[in-house]
Amino acid sequence: MKNVLLLIFVLFSFYNFTEAQTKPYLTLADAQRINAAATEKAKTEGWNVVIVILDDGGNLISLQRMDGVQVGSIDVAQAKAKSAVFFKRPTKVFEDAMKAEGGARIATLPHAVGVEGGLPIFKDGVIVGSIGVSGVTSAQDGIIAAAGVAAY
Amino acid sequence: MKNVLLLIFVLFSFYNFTEAQTKPYLTLADAQRINAAATEKAKTEGWNVVIVILDDGGNLISLQRMDGVQVGSIDVAQAKAKSAVFFKRPTKVFEDAMKAEGGARIATLPHAVGVEGGLPIFKDGVIVGSIGVSGVTSAQDGIIAAAGVAAY
Amino acid sequence: MKNVLLLIFVLFSFYNFTEAQTKPYLTLADAQRINAAATEKAKTEGWNVVIVILDDGGNLISLQRMDGVQVGSIDVAQAKAKSAVFFKRPTKVFEDAMKAEGGARIATLPHAVGVEGGLPIFKDGVIVGSIGVSGVTSAQDGIIAAAGVAAY
Amino acid sequence: MKNVLLLIFVLFSFYNFTEAQTKPYLTLADAQRINAAATEKAKTEGWNVVIVILDDGGNLISLQRMDGVQVGSIDVAQAKAKSAVFFKRPTKVFEDAMKAEGGARIATLPHAVGVEGGLPIFKDGVIVGSIGVSGVTSAQDGIIAAAGVAAY
Repeated sequence: MKNVLLLIFVLFSFYNFTEAQTKPYLTLADAQRINAAATEKAKTEGWNVVIVILDDGGNLISLQRMDGVQVGSIDVAQAKAKSAVFFKRPTKVFEDAMKAEGGARIATLPHAVGVEGGLPIFKDGVIVGSIGVSGVTSAQDGIIAAAGVAAY
Repeated sequence: MKNVLLLIFVLFSFYNFTEAQTKPYLTLADAQRINAAATEKAKTEGWNVVIVILDDGGNLISLQRMDGVQVGSIDVAQAKAKSAVFFKRPTKVFEDAMKAEGGARIATLPHAVGVEGGLPIFKDGVIVGSIGVSGVTSAQDGIIAAAGVAAY
Repeated sequence: MKNVLLLIFVLFSFYNFTEAQTKPYLTLADAQRINAAATEKAKTEGWNVVIVILDDGGNLISLQRMDGVQVGSIDVAQAKAKSAVFFKRPTKVFEDAMKAEGGARIATLPHAVGVEGGLPIFKDGVIVGSIGVSGVTSAQDGIIAAAGVAAY
Repeated sequence: MKNVLLLIFVLFSFYNFTEAQTKPYLTLADAQRINAAATEKAKTEGWNVVIVILDDGGNLISLQRMDGVQVGSIDVAQAKAKSAVFFKRPTKVFEDAMKAEGGARIATLPHAVGVEGGLPIFKDGVIVGSIGVSGVTSAQDGIIAAAGVAAY
């Protein structure tokens, strides 16, 4: 029984999603390419950051913390990325809106983060995930995130 | 002042961790010395507070609640200390930034606490932990925290 | 207005609870004496532990983590202490009961911890708080906790 | 076997932290090497998993989810890794202990995870972090985790 269940599990693991009615999605290879481009930009600038890639459900595909980055950036990068994929927009959009009107109203939205550094990732107009960066200034975080998305 | 604090933050970010095989850390004896100095300052002023010392990962080394302190200060002191070590900066920095622009936007950052009384603790430019104080006014909490750090 | 509120706050801080209809309670001085006795026992035996003292509401009065103790013991010591004060009995009572019948049933009780090392603290038959110890074996944790309570 | 593990644990507890001014730590390069070795083992076996590396405070250094892995494994791998570093022992130790007596009792310890796949990582007898793996059977998760640690 245990083996049958294991077999079923293994079969599901190999299930070819692309043959079914499909949506595009980020593979680990995609995430690694995005992460590598963001990392290269960060190193070039001498900026140490946490880089997070989420799937379209807001669940982690990858996270990488460079040496010496403040611990708080682990959760901040995840929060930015979650905001970006949950609302299909850059966290910079919330930052600008919250600066324009004070922000408390928009902050009542669950998962809305008003600090630059989170970007949604689209393929053919469909959301497939997001990137979140934290560790330096929010504008610098945003530059690194953009370098990552550009590699997708 | 804001620029000076930002500069300090950036300098710490560039500390080259890859050259060191080890990092300094707070011992219990260190925490007790810091706690004793903060307690002495609090008693001298007649202020009753909770004093918390965290390690560099945000985990408790010591906590002490003086008689009669509001129960809420137990969690507030811990939150201030966590904010200080997680972001490698005094909570006063968040307080000032949040007062300047309304604050709700910055409050969307996980672990950011915008009330004075949390201070990071550094050794040779490397973060080793933090102190958080709560119980009187935030400015007074900050004075006690500073007295603690001065004893390290 | 701010000063008036501060004055009220300070007055409440000095409020003499013993003149009112009263219950006994643990002072910080009590907690420090209990903590010191537990620490002395731990050092004599060469055991490194976290020692937690809670008040009768389950809220922290003091916490102390000795060098090198596993980080998990911070939460375990607090959980043991909370179990002891919330149920007015040693966690060893739950340990024995859970061992006798499997334990899943008793584990459905919120805050019940089935591992020795948490002891309630009574004065004149009234619960005033608890001690929780974690870091070595649960039997050794219990010995340290008992040494602490004996000093009260 | 149980005694050997207990002995190892006790020996680590006696490591004299007070003589050292510094402690070793995991760099991102270390985590990447560990992650790469674990990934290679997983691919060789055809097992898809989440691989998590934490620092000595239980905070994320890296996380990587292979394609098709169940979403639940993201949190499971983190929980295993946290248990391993928080208690300085393999989650297999909790698995064996919990199987031997029913387990509900030990499950009342915060952060204790009773499923193989989490391993602490030591350097010179000092805990520096942990690895957590989830996605296939717990025994297979454990094999991947061990392959990772072997590369450190």
